Amino acid sequence: MKLYYAPGACSLADHIALIESGLPYETEHVDLRSRITAGGADFRLINPKGYVPALEMDDGEILTENIAILSYIAAESGWLSPPDGPIHWRVLEMTAYISTEIHKHFKLLFDPSADPEQQAKTRKLLTQTFNRLAGDMGDTTCLFGEHPMIADCYLFVMLMWARGKAGVHLPARLNTYFDHLCKRPSVRQALEDEGLDMS
Amino acid sequence: MKLYYAPGACSLADHIALIESGLPYETEHVDLRSRITAGGADFRLINPKGYVPALEMDDGEILTENIAILSYIAAESGWLSPPDGPIHWRVLEMTAYISTEIHKHFKLLFDPSADPEQQAKTRKLLTQTFNRLAGDMGDTTCLFGEHPMIADCYLFVMLMWARGKAGVHLPARLNTYFDHLCKRPSVRQALEDEGLDMS
Repeated sequence: MKLYYAPGACSLADHIALIESGLPYETEHVDLRSRITAGGADFRLINPKGYVPALEMDDGEILTENIAILSYIAAESGWLSPPDGPIHWRVLEMTAYISTEIHKHFKLLFDPSADPEQQAKTRKLLTQTFNRLAGDMGDTTCLFGEHPMIADCYLFVMLMWARGKAGVHLPARLNTYFDHLCKRPSVRQALEDEGLDMS
Repeated sequence: MKLYYAPGACSLADHIALIESGLPYETEHVDLRSRITAGGADFRLINPKGYVPALEMDDGEILTENIAILSYIAAESGWLSPPDGPIHWRVLEMTAYISTEIHKHFKLLFDPSADPEQQAKTRKLLTQTFNRLAGDMGDTTCLFGEHPMIADCYLFVMLMWARGKAGVHLPARLNTYFDHLCKRPSVRQALEDEGLDMS
């Protein structure tokens, strides 16, 4: 597998998942302004939608959309989501929830030309969502026990954005969760590989 | 399985998928203002997030998030998405794309207090997205051949919204696709069951 990524973008979730999977993989950096990859390829010929993540699967075909890519990595690994059974559906439900109820709101917060009043409302809404999510979490280190699933990889990136330039207040439970994930070798390696300093 | 739905909401996709599946199912209407179901239950106790669709699975547990519910129905049916292989991933990719790049934009178009200029921009963006999607479609009746997959059920609802009160211009290819789906017994039954008149 080869992951096309941009540093600190939502493709970081897939990067962490690939490391956690233990499977062989490569990465290739994409400059999202020029749409040129580190290898000099025109990224629009690889993913005509122009955004990351994009994953070259083992058959050479390109898969896009984060939920699909994370699910594919999970299926290949056999353990970043159970292949079936109740937890399989809970992991997909949480991954979809992160995508549709959390991820989508950051675009406005990252837009320097956006209305500050709208941004304040969005920050408040996200804090409510994170509070509800924290309230539903059990005592385990990760969302579904002690081992991260693909939903954890995705949530990590959302929390990194929230704590960073998006400036969204997080409940203590999610800060503890985030700090724990930061210590995982997979997360540290992905951050280092993408040139991100979290110290 | 029991689907909690609101007429013409995105839960219509799951309703169509349930009929296409041929599996036994029930539906229960939810009044989204009062959050009371047709059976008199407080819907917030069924799905604390308060929105539809929600699916009571055969083990009695409630599954939420449209991508997860559609994938669950597909897995139960065995044929609304292949259980594995390349088409499985293409169906999930398309379902995720509809959710994250199409569905999310309708909220603004359905908000009577939204800025008309922003709404006009969103309509233009959606038309571009639909044009790209139409350009990628082959000659088959449905997205992945002659038989609908879960992505078709979901796209049908998006096109119904676009052609209806959202007022989004669609390319001819998608209008032909929509008209064909409208003739399917599953779609006609779901619309009738939800009290929607498409004549």
